[in-house]
Amino acid sequence: MVKKKCNLYTLVHMEFYNQDIISAKQFDREKVEKFIKLAKKIEANKEKYSTLLKGKVMAALFFEPSTRTRLSFESAFSYLGGKVIGFSSAGSSSVKKGETLADTIRTVANYADIIVIRHSKEGAAKLAQQFSDVPIINAGNGSQEHPTQGLLDCLAIHDLKGTLDGLNVGLIGDLKYGRTVHSLAHLLSNFNSNLYFISPDLLQMQYRVKDSLRLKNNNFKETTQFKETLPLLDVIYMTRIQKERFGDLEEYDKVKNAFILTPKEMKLVKDDAIILHPLPRVNEISPEIDSDPRAKYFEQTYHGLMMRKALLASILLKEIE
Amino acid sequence: MVKKKCNLYTLVHMEFYNQDIISAKQFDREKVEKFIKLAKKIEANKEKYSTLLKGKVMAALFFEPSTRTRLSFESAFSYLGGKVIGFSSAGSSSVKKGETLADTIRTVANYADIIVIRHSKEGAAKLAQQFSDVPIINAGNGSQEHPTQGLLDCLAIHDLKGTLDGLNVGLIGDLKYGRTVHSLAHLLSNFNSNLYFISPDLLQMQYRVKDSLRLKNNNFKETTQFKETLPLLDVIYMTRIQKERFGDLEEYDKVKNAFILTPKEMKLVKDDAIILHPLPRVNEISPEIDSDPRAKYFEQTYHGLMMRKALLASILLKEIE
Amino acid sequence: MVKKKCNLYTLVHMEFYNQDIISAKQFDREKVEKFIKLAKKIEANKEKYSTLLKGKVMAALFFEPSTRTRLSFESAFSYLGGKVIGFSSAGSSSVKKGETLADTIRTVANYADIIVIRHSKEGAAKLAQQFSDVPIINAGNGSQEHPTQGLLDCLAIHDLKGTLDGLNVGLIGDLKYGRTVHSLAHLLSNFNSNLYFISPDLLQMQYRVKDSLRLKNNNFKETTQFKETLPLLDVIYMTRIQKERFGDLEEYDKVKNAFILTPKEMKLVKDDAIILHPLPRVNEISPEIDSDPRAKYFEQTYHGLMMRKALLASILLKEIE
Repeated sequence: MVKKKCNLYTLVHMEFYNQDIISAKQFDREKVEKFIKLAKKIEANKEKYSTLLKGKVMAALFFEPSTRTRLSFESAFSYLGGKVIGFSSAGSSSVKKGETLADTIRTVANYADIIVIRHSKEGAAKLAQQFSDVPIINAGNGSQEHPTQGLLDCLAIHDLKGTLDGLNVGLIGDLKYGRTVHSLAHLLSNFNSNLYFISPDLLQMQYRVKDSLRLKNNNFKETTQFKETLPLLDVIYMTRIQKERFGDLEEYDKVKNAFILTPKEMKLVKDDAIILHPLPRVNEISPEIDSDPRAKYFEQTYHGLMMRKALLASILLKEIE
Repeated sequence: MVKKKCNLYTLVHMEFYNQDIISAKQFDREKVEKFIKLAKKIEANKEKYSTLLKGKVMAALFFEPSTRTRLSFESAFSYLGGKVIGFSSAGSSSVKKGETLADTIRTVANYADIIVIRHSKEGAAKLAQQFSDVPIINAGNGSQEHPTQGLLDCLAIHDLKGTLDGLNVGLIGDLKYGRTVHSLAHLLSNFNSNLYFISPDLLQMQYRVKDSLRLKNNNFKETTQFKETLPLLDVIYMTRIQKERFGDLEEYDKVKNAFILTPKEMKLVKDDAIILHPLPRVNEISPEIDSDPRAKYFEQTYHGLMMRKALLASILLKEIE
Repeated sequence: MVKKKCNLYTLVHMEFYNQDIISAKQFDREKVEKFIKLAKKIEANKEKYSTLLKGKVMAALFFEPSTRTRLSFESAFSYLGGKVIGFSSAGSSSVKKGETLADTIRTVANYADIIVIRHSKEGAAKLAQQFSDVPIINAGNGSQEHPTQGLLDCLAIHDLKGTLDGLNVGLIGDLKYGRTVHSLAHLLSNFNSNLYFISPDLLQMQYRVKDSLRLKNNNFKETTQFKETLPLLDVIYMTRIQKERFGDLEEYDKVKNAFILTPKEMKLVKDDAIILHPLPRVNEISPEIDSDPRAKYFEQTYHGLMMRKALLASILLKEIE
């Protein structure tokens, strides 16, 4: 009676039908390019694909607050003809009565065709994968990964710069706790672009990400020099210093105002560079920049809708004509 | 890629396709009548219109609690064939991480065909309008306006009394902080009815509403005499003294029990008068009155569903046959 | 304008079209069997029934937290082609402004074709029934009843054991505050199975349930001897000692660790017995048992989806072919 999914261990060698998306490391160059192509194809034929997921149900289990990720997943699924159940905070679920994540997942897997999960614990996505009979999409697990954000960022860069090769890409701000930059770094390591990790000392890129890039012989530079590096960059990927990731608020106060983009810094930026940000921002990009033609972070949210349509369709359908 | 909307400044001169609804002042006599007619037409042909908004997505962004407004908008959109995303409290959104309303709106405008917003700040609806690429409906901005409630109130009066002219209409209770009475007063000023603003001194109708009516040469009477005025009225529009609007709770305690409708007061009410209330009520209409045939406030909630269908359809479709 | 429902007093003699589900006592043997049959029929023809409730709207009003019940109702309604509105906690509704349940229900009845309600008060479901113009489904009222859970439990037992007769069924744990066991006991009293009520003294089965069974000449045994009774049972229905039902936490601490199923106790259990649990569990079934072939509590959640489809369809449609 219960739906069965394919063997997880064959995941990276297969197409994505009936598969989970847990980490950006599942995506090689070919797969990233395939999803970019599919996202653009669906966008160009919205009407045609508006009933693609008719009769399907997606469960969105958001244990942490979200605007963009949850709403764009729900919007994507709705525009493709499917329906959505779920919760936007754990407080209204049985978690409040002491239920474990494993039990919640085993249950919800019986009510939906796919589960999208965000959770504050790093191990949550893998645990969900282990206990679910339907595909799992990791929509953010603690400070570790946010693979669908990384994929939409790749789509945004490709759409706006025409390529993912030969670019100087700066990942800026909180590279330690920022899960989106971890996923994006993994994905970009498939391409011939130069990565600059620009952060205060306290928030350097995590070792496990750097080790993974080194294993792939991927070049990256680490620096604390924000202004000095800006003029080199084709893609400026800003991130928020996330208060909620700090145990020690004094540590937060020390670094929160470093690495801010104001009109002054924009003078150092190339004319054809693009500014991205996973959002929400607090003060790391000043609002005066929003009208600068290089500011693309709101357009980037639309790439989120496009990419999530492609991912959901690929997982739930054997073929998309 | 991003959907564009028409110039806002031409709003009041145009039909409502692709337009925002921010204030009741956008509606002249002809427009109010047109929407009443459309609401009744859709109601009479439910089956026919059940796929009118197929393929469309509405975002309901409720930063303040709501039962009637949110659920009737969601129900209206669903019955017309569309799908709904959104949140019912800001706590589960990125607002919790410090995101501004402008950024939230710019994002969500990329995920939906229309945005319905309720917010505690008066400026919220206009701000949303400014930053959205899709139409905005103001579902309550602080204590200023609630235009779709005013429109459904007009529908209720028209449906139950057969006209919006020649009536004595009493707006009663909290006319200072009550946003629904502000919108209703603006809408009724298009018709030849007599308005009675009946409230304690502390909660008199706001000057900006009264000034606006005076500019249109519209007659209204202000009084603190509740019982004395009751026998004159054809429409008795009660409102709740809203605790959450008071900074000073002592002030609240002083006025909360004035202007209560009990069976005793009902003896003073005309036989063919109707009692309306935007709800929720607390104690300003005693439950014994619910079975009085003049009590129409629950039927009025159904007019909410009818009017919101008409509004949503008019904004999202060029033509409705 | 308002939808009318049939006379409530004829409820138990009629089919369920346009009826409420408030108590398990509404279901005699024939009705339980009919719903089991219908649930299996819909399951066997998912595609055929995927548009059964097209154009319908369900309101899910959950005043208490829920995972399984809310999500399976929403999933069931969605898979049958309908749409869902509602809330998952009272905090985002007008209840926060002091609205009564009666007023909330009268309102929401105007926005939906059916209302599913969970509330902490025992009287809530009956009150909702009294004030609604559309059918009400009780999804848990305080510690009294949870009839749709009882029905899905019957489906699970029938599906897994092939019958509801001639079984030794043990209801174990919190039989005083556990609403699911009250409903299940009423339903099973229609069949020729032996009921064992196994609990600590403080949490004995409620008198009103026992009195009701006695009136039907139904046999049951009460005992505090958990291990001694286990070897007799064909169905082992475990329940959580619900902390939230206790006024006195000292009382809770005394009983919370009695009646726990671990691998040690499993050695006493028949080879062909089945372990059920309404979930969520805390520690009353140890996770090591999850992989035991007799553990059926996750499969049971799928029976919830099946049964709720059958109930929703029966209430909303005159005929199901």
